[in-house]
Amino acid sequence: MVIRGAPAIGVAAAMGVALGALQAGEADFDAHMDTVCAALAATRPTAVNLFWAIDRMRRLYQGLRGKPVEEIRAALVREAVLMLEEDIAICRAIGRHGANLVPDGKTALTHCNAGALATAGYGTALGVFRAAIEAGKRIDVIADETRPFLQGARLTAWELQRDGIPCTLITDNMAGHFLKSGRIGCVVVGADRIAANGDVANKIGTYSVAVLARENHVPFYVAAPISTLDLSLPSGESIPIEQRAASEVTRFFGRQIAPDNIAVENPAFDVTPARYVDAIITERGVARAPYDLSLRELILRT
Amino acid sequence: MVIRGAPAIGVAAAMGVALGALQAGEADFDAHMDTVCAALAATRPTAVNLFWAIDRMRRLYQGLRGKPVEEIRAALVREAVLMLEEDIAICRAIGRHGANLVPDGKTALTHCNAGALATAGYGTALGVFRAAIEAGKRIDVIADETRPFLQGARLTAWELQRDGIPCTLITDNMAGHFLKSGRIGCVVVGADRIAANGDVANKIGTYSVAVLARENHVPFYVAAPISTLDLSLPSGESIPIEQRAASEVTRFFGRQIAPDNIAVENPAFDVTPARYVDAIITERGVARAPYDLSLRELILRT
Repeated sequence: MVIRGAPAIGVAAAMGVALGALQAGEADFDAHMDTVCAALAATRPTAVNLFWAIDRMRRLYQGLRGKPVEEIRAALVREAVLMLEEDIAICRAIGRHGANLVPDGKTALTHCNAGALATAGYGTALGVFRAAIEAGKRIDVIADETRPFLQGARLTAWELQRDGIPCTLITDNMAGHFLKSGRIGCVVVGADRIAANGDVANKIGTYSVAVLARENHVPFYVAAPISTLDLSLPSGESIPIEQRAASEVTRFFGRQIAPDNIAVENPAFDVTPARYVDAIITERGVARAPYDLSLRELILRT
Repeated sequence: MVIRGAPAIGVAAAMGVALGALQAGEADFDAHMDTVCAALAATRPTAVNLFWAIDRMRRLYQGLRGKPVEEIRAALVREAVLMLEEDIAICRAIGRHGANLVPDGKTALTHCNAGALATAGYGTALGVFRAAIEAGKRIDVIADETRPFLQGARLTAWELQRDGIPCTLITDNMAGHFLKSGRIGCVVVGADRIAANGDVANKIGTYSVAVLARENHVPFYVAAPISTLDLSLPSGESIPIEQRAASEVTRFFGRQIAPDNIAVENPAFDVTPARYVDAIITERGVARAPYDLSLRELILRT
């Protein structure tokens, strides 16, 4: 959780593979790289960008097999830096496509942090808000605090405040109340993995926000790079959900907030069925239902 | 927030009026009692049990006007003690009526604390769970932690653990995920005020749970004494919602968890429209839609 946010995890993994190449000896280069890739792949199960980034780096060094190790190392470092630069460009493209969807003069709501701190920069969901404001729209943002890790309170609120974007912090259980109030014009969140049918795995609580948005006729948008798509999975049911330690729920910066030995569930992500998702905003454009067609079309688009 | 939970607030207010009578001088008894009642009424705006209890005590001492002050004082103390004893009996009756609605062998979900610590004892929502278990049902309970004040983590989890009722603690934003999972057989919550049409004001986040329960075909029940009904209000729209300090959201036991000067909304309650409420469980029986008829019928029933 030191590095979090699906796109940032992807870029960090690419950097990790490049770092592994710099440290690998010439004799056992391939074996060492296999170990590095396996270790990186075992860090987090849900965000598919991790596996996407490792695979991209692996394909590169496998394609260079037989070349001088120095050349392979340089190529991997270049690729990792390219992926970082690409990620910022991708976020800006997501922002451009998404800005059109944000209603002017209304409040937008987001959950968790899909901002500069979850990507190489600019952000996915927060990139959409930034681009909307750059396009002259007057919006403010409600940020869910996002228990248990408080990415909303600690990251999103900080990012938006730093950018001078009006931001109001609420606890997660207030989102429904404000979605019902008529104040919210749209919800935009990020994603950790999107299945072929458009089901979206994202930070725990996203599903609840999506249902509450639909119930109150507020459009619910997901902003994510193409690398978040996992068309190998027919639906979100097969996306692995990371279960995290009970202490994240029962302790708060070391302070105990629940009885000793209480049972806890702590799934880090949930799956929002595609039927609640009004659009998926990518760097190549906006996909709408039926997602099995529109997502495939975006992947083929160059 | 030292005393919280609508029925407990009512009993405490009655005790407060009795205490005021013991302290009132003979010469300015009526004026002093008016001051005491006004001060108690100004403490919390949402839970109607507060006003119900004060009115009941006021009617009693106004009916005794002209009697010796010692007699009035004794009558008020007796009445407050009676209201405490009644509240426990009421909770047990709510439990008996509600136990039938709890599916055997499933998990029940609750929000905030509507337990012994929110009443004079036994509890309303938790009373339903206690009565279901006393009736031989095998259930376990998922408790929402209930930000910002953590009544679920600090009170409900403690109460259930102490009673040996299996309890699992989750953050509020996980409720939707578990309601979707098929594990939850019913939701039972308390109430702070119920309007004539069955709209329910209760702890912030209740509305979200109700929508998510309905979306997943899980019955949503409200357990509350008749004193929680406010038939003077046609709908929940006119129930006053207490707004509390930003620091409850931005600070956690003194620890700052959000940027300085971030804007915060902190409504302590929300309103769940009656259409999401499958039944209202009272000490006089179970009301179902249409609530404008069924609630009136319960009030008239003796």
